[in-house]
Amino acid sequence: MSVRAGIIVTGTEVLSGQISDQNGPWVAARLLELGVDVAHVTICGDRPGDMTQQLRFLTGQGLDLIVTTGGLGPTADDLTVPTVAAFCGLEVIRDPEVEEHITQIIRRWRRFADDHQLSDALTAGIAKQALVPAGAAAIPPTGTAPGVAIPASPTHPAILILPGPPRELRAMWPAALAQPAVAGVLAGADDVVHETMRAYGLSEPDLAATLRRAGEEIGGYDTLELTTCMRGGEVEIDARFPRGAAAHYDALKTLLLQEHSGQIFSPDGATVDDLLARALTGRTIATAESCTGGLVAARLTDRPGSSAYVLGGVVSYSNDVKIRVLGVPADLIAELGAVSEPVAAAMADGARSVAGSDIAVSTTGIAGPGGQVPGKPVGTVCFGLAIDGRPTATVTRTFPGDRTMVRTLATSYALHLVLGALT
Amino acid sequence: MSVRAGIIVTGTEVLSGQISDQNGPWVAARLLELGVDVAHVTICGDRPGDMTQQLRFLTGQGLDLIVTTGGLGPTADDLTVPTVAAFCGLEVIRDPEVEEHITQIIRRWRRFADDHQLSDALTAGIAKQALVPAGAAAIPPTGTAPGVAIPASPTHPAILILPGPPRELRAMWPAALAQPAVAGVLAGADDVVHETMRAYGLSEPDLAATLRRAGEEIGGYDTLELTTCMRGGEVEIDARFPRGAAAHYDALKTLLLQEHSGQIFSPDGATVDDLLARALTGRTIATAESCTGGLVAARLTDRPGSSAYVLGGVVSYSNDVKIRVLGVPADLIAELGAVSEPVAAAMADGARSVAGSDIAVSTTGIAGPGGQVPGKPVGTVCFGLAIDGRPTATVTRTFPGDRTMVRTLATSYALHLVLGALT
Repeated sequence: MSVRAGIIVTGTEVLSGQISDQNGPWVAARLLELGVDVAHVTICGDRPGDMTQQLRFLTGQGLDLIVTTGGLGPTADDLTVPTVAAFCGLEVIRDPEVEEHITQIIRRWRRFADDHQLSDALTAGIAKQALVPAGAAAIPPTGTAPGVAIPASPTHPAILILPGPPRELRAMWPAALAQPAVAGVLAGADDVVHETMRAYGLSEPDLAATLRRAGEEIGGYDTLELTTCMRGGEVEIDARFPRGAAAHYDALKTLLLQEHSGQIFSPDGATVDDLLARALTGRTIATAESCTGGLVAARLTDRPGSSAYVLGGVVSYSNDVKIRVLGVPADLIAELGAVSEPVAAAMADGARSVAGSDIAVSTTGIAGPGGQVPGKPVGTVCFGLAIDGRPTATVTRTFPGDRTMVRTLATSYALHLVLGALT
Repeated sequence: MSVRAGIIVTGTEVLSGQISDQNGPWVAARLLELGVDVAHVTICGDRPGDMTQQLRFLTGQGLDLIVTTGGLGPTADDLTVPTVAAFCGLEVIRDPEVEEHITQIIRRWRRFADDHQLSDALTAGIAKQALVPAGAAAIPPTGTAPGVAIPASPTHPAILILPGPPRELRAMWPAALAQPAVAGVLAGADDVVHETMRAYGLSEPDLAATLRRAGEEIGGYDTLELTTCMRGGEVEIDARFPRGAAAHYDALKTLLLQEHSGQIFSPDGATVDDLLARALTGRTIATAESCTGGLVAARLTDRPGSSAYVLGGVVSYSNDVKIRVLGVPADLIAELGAVSEPVAAAMADGARSVAGSDIAVSTTGIAGPGGQVPGKPVGTVCFGLAIDGRPTATVTRTFPGDRTMVRTLATSYALHLVLGALT
């Protein structure tokens, strides 16, 4: 790719590991979609010296664009604008228009009366946030902090300064791209296509073997930049390529679908959640969860509009709730244990009947670390699937990992179980 | 702090934003606990040239230790060891002991018979993973990849190479710290104390005002390195300081507790989940969730051993489930709407009676983006709290943000509501 970018993420709470950065990955993904090659992401604390070193490093890499996130707040430790300006050798100038804009936002947010006198601290904070490097453009605030776009010069690439709160940053992105300093750089980017396939139950070695074969059989395979990523039992296969290489991608897709038709559930990147929402149109679903403790219901209701098909669920953590709410026969639990396929079936049937839904899915298992019994190690999970007009189905799986991983993998499995039965 | 470190996170899937990095923040937090100052974190893709540039940059910063994560797999794009070795001017040597160790692990994992002949691809992968730079120490694998510790030289700092899978990395950490090349550097670190307080419902401006006062009133306040972080409605106040400055921290803690006693629920860093688990000892709880869709139950059951006090819950997404399973009077919903305090109360009462628990908490609200009605904007959530022997309590809150944020904030609020009532 011909246009290269770097990202500087600022914030002591990110550098120290207190919070996990959301901005670097988001900006990187957006730039890649635009055909920009992201070479480096660097994270620094709220120390101007360290940030200057990172600016120098990225500039030395011959990049076309540097994007910074964070450090635009009103307080003294928010240092991005003066630090970048000093690095670029630019004075910072108070922009009265920006200052007025921020003042109006603050007055609205805090619901001040028109004649309310702002405190000195507030006024000073606003004045600080209205500082813009000479020759740079201010991008209207989506929170209280304006962004800044600095055109490239012989000594530094174009620099785009964005706020730290992820919602503010994302809201500002379209306006940021429209800044001449940024648009000029992006105009040189390749026309890159981004495609995704998703598979479930496909092992990494099997996928690697098919990709090796693709490398041998498909001319132009090397023009496809592939990244594969395992997550929650799924494999995501990402490809980026110049538009002209689409035929090579099609050849790869054909080969993958031919070799792994049973595993690739999404040839076009739709998530299991997307596909499930589609498959549930006109039907209703309920859940009965033991080891997943509500995660399946939470995942199903994560989507706007899910109330059209999710009726509800029962988290039957105790045996008593399984028996009394879901109608699981007490004998069944006494005889076979709560983690058994007949209990999973009875839970699914019970959920369907309690909620009055067309479909119900159930989980009962041993998430660990304790609770294992002979023949049922930690990670054992039984699933039940009740669908109107079909016999109730059950299946048992053993998942690796710790409690959180077992619960996550079991939740993902439950969704795939339902999707597989409906499509 | 006298010992400074940098972290290089590798992986195209991290750089491209496909997955969010867990290793950088984890290693940074561990190093800070050990009194090491983390100055820079950098992220690069699986490209040796970019990694070499980051190694050069960090070395140029005069750091004492560089930690790398990822790129230790058996495939061709896993390049960390040869890249770091070349940067250090060290040959890589096949370590037969490491090779044998990895072979045994693979045989065990794949359940190969003793006389099973390994494939060429597998043998080649193992040989690659057994390459160790001359003069460096291999750290025994916790997955299949060994770590590597390279002692400092006049041209580079000590370098610790760790695997990418978070579970492998974390499992290897104690052995990594014990490597002479690493232990020697850490021996020079300050004796730093790390303390945390947690508050709920404390606004940032109010906290900032108290911290300003602390700066004026407490001599030695500047020796405390403070980071504050908002998350899920909570404020986490982190302090790191030399052991000798403990009295200054105590003074700060006293001031904060005096000013914000109603908000600081954890003066010693225990999480709301910790405290709730403690408060629920000897009691039982159930949930009735509408807008949070199972998140409260999932959060409560996230802890090992939670089956001692979580009996279960009902996700009553539809009105019909509210009425039929929880016994909410249909008239109440018809008259006041499902998002109302009387319905929240009836849901909590119903959950307590259905599950037979001492306590039940309920949520019913408008997570958005649709669904708002006059007087009940998106973000409105009603909570009910039923406790044996007390009148059922209700409260309504309006949370900002999108669907995910409203659900997350409402879940956090529900936990604090229960904790507040029990302590």
